Amino acid sequence: MADKEKYVEEIVDQEDNFSQWYNQVVRKADLADYSPVRGCMIIKPYGYAVWENIQRLMDARFKETGVVNAYFPLLIPRSFLEREAEHIEGFAPEVAWVTHGGGEELEEPLAIRPTSETIIGHTYAKWVQSYRDLPILINQWNNVLRWEKRTVLFLRTMEFLWQEGHTAHRTIEEAEERTLTMLDVYKAFAEEDAAIPVIAGRKSENEQFAGAWRTYSIEALMGDGKALQAGTSHNFAHNFAKSFDIQYLDTDGQRKYCATTSWGASTRLIGGIIMVHGDKSGLILPPRLAPYQVVIVPIWRKDAEKSAVFEMVERVEKMLKGKVRLKVDLSENTPGWKFNEWELRGVPVRMEIGPRDVQNNSVTLVRRVDRAKESVTVEALETRLPVLLEEVQKALFQRALEFRNQNTHYTDSYEEFKQIIAEKRGFVRVKWAEDSAAELAIKEETKATLRVIPFDQPEGGVHGRCIYTGKPATCEAIFARSY
Amino acid sequence: MADKEKYVEEIVDQEDNFSQWYNQVVRKADLADYSPVRGCMIIKPYGYAVWENIQRLMDARFKETGVVNAYFPLLIPRSFLEREAEHIEGFAPEVAWVTHGGGEELEEPLAIRPTSETIIGHTYAKWVQSYRDLPILINQWNNVLRWEKRTVLFLRTMEFLWQEGHTAHRTIEEAEERTLTMLDVYKAFAEEDAAIPVIAGRKSENEQFAGAWRTYSIEALMGDGKALQAGTSHNFAHNFAKSFDIQYLDTDGQRKYCATTSWGASTRLIGGIIMVHGDKSGLILPPRLAPYQVVIVPIWRKDAEKSAVFEMVERVEKMLKGKVRLKVDLSENTPGWKFNEWELRGVPVRMEIGPRDVQNNSVTLVRRVDRAKESVTVEALETRLPVLLEEVQKALFQRALEFRNQNTHYTDSYEEFKQIIAEKRGFVRVKWAEDSAAELAIKEETKATLRVIPFDQPEGGVHGRCIYTGKPATCEAIFARSY
Repeated sequence: MADKEKYVEEIVDQEDNFSQWYNQVVRKADLADYSPVRGCMIIKPYGYAVWENIQRLMDARFKETGVVNAYFPLLIPRSFLEREAEHIEGFAPEVAWVTHGGGEELEEPLAIRPTSETIIGHTYAKWVQSYRDLPILINQWNNVLRWEKRTVLFLRTMEFLWQEGHTAHRTIEEAEERTLTMLDVYKAFAEEDAAIPVIAGRKSENEQFAGAWRTYSIEALMGDGKALQAGTSHNFAHNFAKSFDIQYLDTDGQRKYCATTSWGASTRLIGGIIMVHGDKSGLILPPRLAPYQVVIVPIWRKDAEKSAVFEMVERVEKMLKGKVRLKVDLSENTPGWKFNEWELRGVPVRMEIGPRDVQNNSVTLVRRVDRAKESVTVEALETRLPVLLEEVQKALFQRALEFRNQNTHYTDSYEEFKQIIAEKRGFVRVKWAEDSAAELAIKEETKATLRVIPFDQPEGGVHGRCIYTGKPATCEAIFARSY
Repeated sequence: MADKEKYVEEIVDQEDNFSQWYNQVVRKADLADYSPVRGCMIIKPYGYAVWENIQRLMDARFKETGVVNAYFPLLIPRSFLEREAEHIEGFAPEVAWVTHGGGEELEEPLAIRPTSETIIGHTYAKWVQSYRDLPILINQWNNVLRWEKRTVLFLRTMEFLWQEGHTAHRTIEEAEERTLTMLDVYKAFAEEDAAIPVIAGRKSENEQFAGAWRTYSIEALMGDGKALQAGTSHNFAHNFAKSFDIQYLDTDGQRKYCATTSWGASTRLIGGIIMVHGDKSGLILPPRLAPYQVVIVPIWRKDAEKSAVFEMVERVEKMLKGKVRLKVDLSENTPGWKFNEWELRGVPVRMEIGPRDVQNNSVTLVRRVDRAKESVTVEALETRLPVLLEEVQKALFQRALEFRNQNTHYTDSYEEFKQIIAEKRGFVRVKWAEDSAAELAIKEETKATLRVIPFDQPEGGVHGRCIYTGKPATCEAIFARSY
């Protein structure tokens, strides 16, 4: 389906031009394509298979916490969006409007959902009567649309796929617990399944979701030293309940407002995986999310060798079926070509089977992450491969963690801060006295934003002064340039 | 979340008012709800869990045939829709148009996809260069929108969830083979997973998909004797390839048009399941698709009995975890109430655990389909339950098949035909000389449409005359009133 020549072309060096490297990897690894509709992308089968794995693993984690899935409509009446003042202010510029349907002009324009708090808020108001109806713990996997001028495949597209969870509770405290539980789920998914180390914490008021009382996020560091928000969780307290009149009759006979939450993660995660793990040879996929965990490449020179090699390939394939996600490359390309192709496409482990392997009744396994080789007997494969895949999973996480540690800077001087942001990139952790104006000034002056106020704060509190205002610091905060 | 009173209300008798019965079952079983956007529905968690099971089983069947999933954009430029003349003629009246986005009026309105042949055709034209790129076998699970005036939950809604497969091939013959393979997949899914007997065959020209060369479908008979199309598969031959210039370089050095197909099944299937299996007590779900396959209802009178009963419930629950999809109803409702509730919600098997069961170290199993009871020792449960569930699955299919057989009529007289359609409903199988005008006349006179020309035709050909025109018959066809 793709131009075969692409695999012999070199991709650009990450160091020279990270964003060009990124686009080349997305295109050449066959993850996604541009679409004829400006701002929208086509997720190709290989990229979509990554998304299917993300969905499967994340969905199982959601369900373990009691969440169930449902589906709410794509179209939202304009009057709904307008009901929560901050919400419409945040989203109005990004909305696409349906004005005609069934051959007629509509009386009220309908928004394509940029997110579904409003239509779900309206529905929960109908569903919730008493405390017995609570909590409601619903998630939906769907598509949303936010008008964007500049598009980057996976990272910023007009339409994207995601999940949005929406819960309703008796108290703000219970909502807060759920908000944090879901952030924990995202963190566990990111670190264990995507092998991406993340920093969990609270967003500053400036960076909160439109309409949220508190927004939490997990932040990851990309290979170019820029931050990516990889999942967010919001506690709305009574904000949406008041706008949509979501009330319940409590045990004491009083009608009270529910506290609601929402939390989301999107196809953006695929962009994060590419930018955290990829290297100069292309994509590297963590084994838990890789469509193919292992690719078998048969190697032979003479025709006499071929049949013995193929026979062994077939034997191994049969043995591993259903145990690991396997691709067998029997195409007519050369082994070297295949090595390059499957490295570019990020398959975590390559299995080489050549005449010498046949003789020894063994195969050669090569880890994509560091090209470490080992020889394994055919009989040992079934037990060795799953272990090796978990080792690779851990190695990727470890490597990303070391990169993040190397690129996390600490300073008490705003001059040095500016220099780091300009020259070194990465996370900069500073003492901070929460102040929106100072935050905006820093953004203006350096393009860095306050990514997150980490949960992980110094024991015994923060001492010293805010890096910008000089006021007594109340916390440590992480700044970075970001996607 | 739902009004508890609903379970004590009687639902209306199917015989008296089938459509009211249907709506009550959908609402009271908590499958779906109306939405504030006219024509759109909210799929509630219990209904969505059925859809998740449909997706999982159908998707596995697709993948066994080599199909992979991908994702194409929601929005389609107007000019694309207009490129295939029949296609736009068929869909134009049903399209919703986005005319504004990002605060500006768009230069070209964008359609919300009613189906994706056009944007996928455009994309395949870019992806396909040579015969080596073929076939393309892609499916997507997504939402589509078709403007509808009258809405019935699951059966006819403006927005619905479905899968649409789109393939491209070297020859029309190969496309035909794929078209029929996918129809087979639908038939196998319907009969084996949904326990719905279906008749597979070809659609008449009048009933073909807009732009198709040939359309095939599976047709099922609902409990009120009306037909429901449960899945369609289309061979476009060169129609879309010519409109979108999808060409490949063949081995002979010639550029040739691809032949393309598409095939779809939707949340409508859930409506079919309700209408085929349901009875006067409510929903009956086939075990393979049921969110809960077994519900445990503990029974006790005195407090002294309660702890022993609960202990056994816990023991059984632990034993069956991960083996069957289990719901344990520990609510404070009476056992009778619970029986009604879970019968209404269609759980295939009820497990009663009372003091006498505890004494005998056994449980009582009751099949939803016919209330057949059996007593099973706790030790035997693990082996008995999966078998019982398959028995229930088969019993549902068998019952539906018998109903269909009883309601399939054969006649050579148009007078009798009209009487059957008016008074008896069901499928009417007649001799037919394919003729669009005659088909439209029958529809006008009786409201019955030609549902399908079954693959299963008499050995040695059809002899006799068309029921309407009196011309020599070329086939047998099935007519019915339909959803």
